[in-house]
Amino acid sequence: MVKLSAYQKLEKRFARIHLLKSIGHLLRWDGEVMMPPASIGIRAEQLSLLETESNSILRASQTGRLLDSAETSRQSLDDWEQANLREMRRLWQHANAIPNRLVNAFHRATTNAEMQWRTAVEQNDFGMLEVPLERVIAVVHERAQVLGDALRCSPYDALLDEHDPGRRATELDGIFARIRCGLTPLIPAIMDRQSSRPTVELAVPVAVARQKDLCKRIMKGIGFPFEKGRLDESLHPFTEGTAEDIRITSRFDPDNFFTGLMGVLHEVGHAMYDFGLPAKWATQPVGRDRGMAIHESQALFLEMVIGRSRAFMNFCAPLVARIFGVSGAAWTSENLYGLATRVKRSLIRIHADEVTYPMHVVLRWELEQDLFRGTLRVKDLPGAWNEKMRSYLQVVPQDAKSGCLQDSHWPMGYFGYFPTYLMGSVIAAQLFAAVRCAVPDIMSRIEAGDFEPLFSWLGRNIHGQGARFTGGELVERASGHEVNPDYLISYLRDKYLLQ
Amino acid sequence: MVKLSAYQKLEKRFARIHLLKSIGHLLRWDGEVMMPPASIGIRAEQLSLLETESNSILRASQTGRLLDSAETSRQSLDDWEQANLREMRRLWQHANAIPNRLVNAFHRATTNAEMQWRTAVEQNDFGMLEVPLERVIAVVHERAQVLGDALRCSPYDALLDEHDPGRRATELDGIFARIRCGLTPLIPAIMDRQSSRPTVELAVPVAVARQKDLCKRIMKGIGFPFEKGRLDESLHPFTEGTAEDIRITSRFDPDNFFTGLMGVLHEVGHAMYDFGLPAKWATQPVGRDRGMAIHESQALFLEMVIGRSRAFMNFCAPLVARIFGVSGAAWTSENLYGLATRVKRSLIRIHADEVTYPMHVVLRWELEQDLFRGTLRVKDLPGAWNEKMRSYLQVVPQDAKSGCLQDSHWPMGYFGYFPTYLMGSVIAAQLFAAVRCAVPDIMSRIEAGDFEPLFSWLGRNIHGQGARFTGGELVERASGHEVNPDYLISYLRDKYLLQ
Repeated sequence: MVKLSAYQKLEKRFARIHLLKSIGHLLRWDGEVMMPPASIGIRAEQLSLLETESNSILRASQTGRLLDSAETSRQSLDDWEQANLREMRRLWQHANAIPNRLVNAFHRATTNAEMQWRTAVEQNDFGMLEVPLERVIAVVHERAQVLGDALRCSPYDALLDEHDPGRRATELDGIFARIRCGLTPLIPAIMDRQSSRPTVELAVPVAVARQKDLCKRIMKGIGFPFEKGRLDESLHPFTEGTAEDIRITSRFDPDNFFTGLMGVLHEVGHAMYDFGLPAKWATQPVGRDRGMAIHESQALFLEMVIGRSRAFMNFCAPLVARIFGVSGAAWTSENLYGLATRVKRSLIRIHADEVTYPMHVVLRWELEQDLFRGTLRVKDLPGAWNEKMRSYLQVVPQDAKSGCLQDSHWPMGYFGYFPTYLMGSVIAAQLFAAVRCAVPDIMSRIEAGDFEPLFSWLGRNIHGQGARFTGGELVERASGHEVNPDYLISYLRDKYLLQ
Repeated sequence: MVKLSAYQKLEKRFARIHLLKSIGHLLRWDGEVMMPPASIGIRAEQLSLLETESNSILRASQTGRLLDSAETSRQSLDDWEQANLREMRRLWQHANAIPNRLVNAFHRATTNAEMQWRTAVEQNDFGMLEVPLERVIAVVHERAQVLGDALRCSPYDALLDEHDPGRRATELDGIFARIRCGLTPLIPAIMDRQSSRPTVELAVPVAVARQKDLCKRIMKGIGFPFEKGRLDESLHPFTEGTAEDIRITSRFDPDNFFTGLMGVLHEVGHAMYDFGLPAKWATQPVGRDRGMAIHESQALFLEMVIGRSRAFMNFCAPLVARIFGVSGAAWTSENLYGLATRVKRSLIRIHADEVTYPMHVVLRWELEQDLFRGTLRVKDLPGAWNEKMRSYLQVVPQDAKSGCLQDSHWPMGYFGYFPTYLMGSVIAAQLFAAVRCAVPDIMSRIEAGDFEPLFSWLGRNIHGQGARFTGGELVERASGHEVNPDYLISYLRDKYLLQ
């Protein structure tokens, strides 16, 4: 029998983690889509068992020794293997930095706060969440301190690193400030222009079965491989799986087919990224996606940049007419495009259009850091929230539910997560500029229903690179430039003021 | 911290095995019902990982030491715990008796033979299976020898023990011989009587959605707990899960709703057994079902004894009429009963009625033992098969596909499995006699759609007993008598000649 090197032994360990995680994906998908309601108890136990199993591989002292040993003979490895080893170490650091005491404290604090958050939303009373959220912030702070020590970065940067590896707060500060400045005059200009171009509302309800037919037809056109994927329904759209089996869901509204279709496009964007990850490295850390900002960029690229374009609507409108059996002014390509790109100042982030959406994230970004630093007390959050809403979007929530209670991220302990949504938009816009340079007729190809050149470019430049580079390097290699928010501002200006 | 006893440590180990197995159930269900076809590769790896994990707990030397230690202080345990410890030892014996070499040889031989069997069926050529099946029998023999040494029984009895713990071949010899003698005159008498009572065929196709509505309505009546179970479609009906989440499937034929309904009743019989297992022992070996013969008895009880009774048809016919929107001579309760109890000598076991079915198993029982002993060579199997078909059922297969190639059990290495089907019928008939004694108006309650007394009796006497007793003891405690095939003969005679 051939003796395995330390690196090869690590590959075997991480392949096992991959397999355990792939089972977890299926269990979570089933939990949202298929599971009978009273089976939730055993499902939680099953997921916790899988989590414990993969953590125990990651946290085993033998894994640490193998990493040390593999790193000393790093020069014998090729580029991909070296990147893989770096990612293994990164996962090991994240898993081993936090002592069990703190893992448990975090779990208790966030479980409690999430529960309280649900009640607070029901009763529309932010006060109920104050104490639990303060506790979460205290534990997140302690956790970030320990993680920052291990990763040799600031506590808050350590939180960012969990979702968007390598990203630093100073970079985001600059990017988000530019976006805020750029959007402030853009939003009223766009709304003004749109007010002189009225749209016709969709007045005919469409059966969910027909909407699914349309979505599947479009998914096939995009190249979604149904032989290893599915589309189903759930309360909120999501994507679960690994490249061997990816399942997306959407939510369908008979009165507005855009809800279902745009949900599908968003999730297909996520799924195509996962399908396109380097197959050779499927079971290894370097074969995974490069964090949430890049993942979100792929979803927003397909939903916002492509899905809400005239070219896509020209491709889509005849399918809509045929599959839904509809016609008339509301269903023309131009009117559908108008409906899909309507801009409106609103209170709820998840319903916001692509022009005002960034402001919702900028607001959270600023408040989150104030909360984390302690310069904003939890009890003062509603006031600060409403003040910023007035200043950035000129709308003010009349209650907590449509204000600072609308998201569960903070009660669940997700600090450092909101920025990935906006970085997704930024990166999507930058990649769009790059792909239009590389494939000048890209939009007329999409109008003709040909998505191959788009996904071939994304596959080469993003998907197939896995976690080989940092997110920043990946974007720079693909586009020729550092991440730059001006691409987003230009993209929005071109699309909403010039076309 | 309280120090755990050896027995308590074992309970923790077996609870972990239970959880791993519950995940495997879900993965198998998904594989048959939901999984995209090209995901079969990773699914196999996932299942194999779970299997390896539970086997490694079972085969750990520490598990053996804990068993030894717990057995020395057995007197400190209560009845259930002692039975649990016995079952733990039993599972340990089965897992540890077979050396890895033989586990692998069995896996290779059966994987190859099953593959060859598929091709042989397609090409309708038994010759292709000869060599692979000979190899399977040789490995099964070796495996049985080793297992028999460990369990201190004959090699063939060791195989029986895997599927129906504690059952011995000598007992089955007597039972099956009595059944063969009893049925030989009964079959022609029943067919003769039925020939003078013609039925009207169901000429109207019924949409699958309506058939499912009917089945769900009946499942609710029976008490199937949909809050922790599901009904779906698959190529062959099956039941997967543990009491916390059980999923059944059936196959629906628009031209014959009995296919779907009887499949559902069969699987609901299996599911109600699992749902009714002792909740307190859910994660432990003593909380499992008592083997395949008892499991099959519960499925056949509901499908054959109850589902194909006049009482059930009187309950069912109005629902059929309402949900399907049908009426006329074909859809009367009496005609439906006639159709559901039609007896016909036929070639294929899985399509056989309850009167001729036992002959199909008797034939396999006899041939299987001859093959195992070496008194029948594989190449002579088709001739021997056809000879027995002629003798027992007066029909002779014209090709291998409808003869000895019809089942995959032998190529898959399932020796000792066929008898559980017939023992299921035998036990179902015996339990029926017992429940009619205990609840004299049981059939009129069912006619009124009230299944509570039936499942309350089965729950107390069978389901809730888990694996506390052997199958034989369980039947004797429930019915007051040793397993006796005369109950089956009387049940068939009463139902088909006297009613």
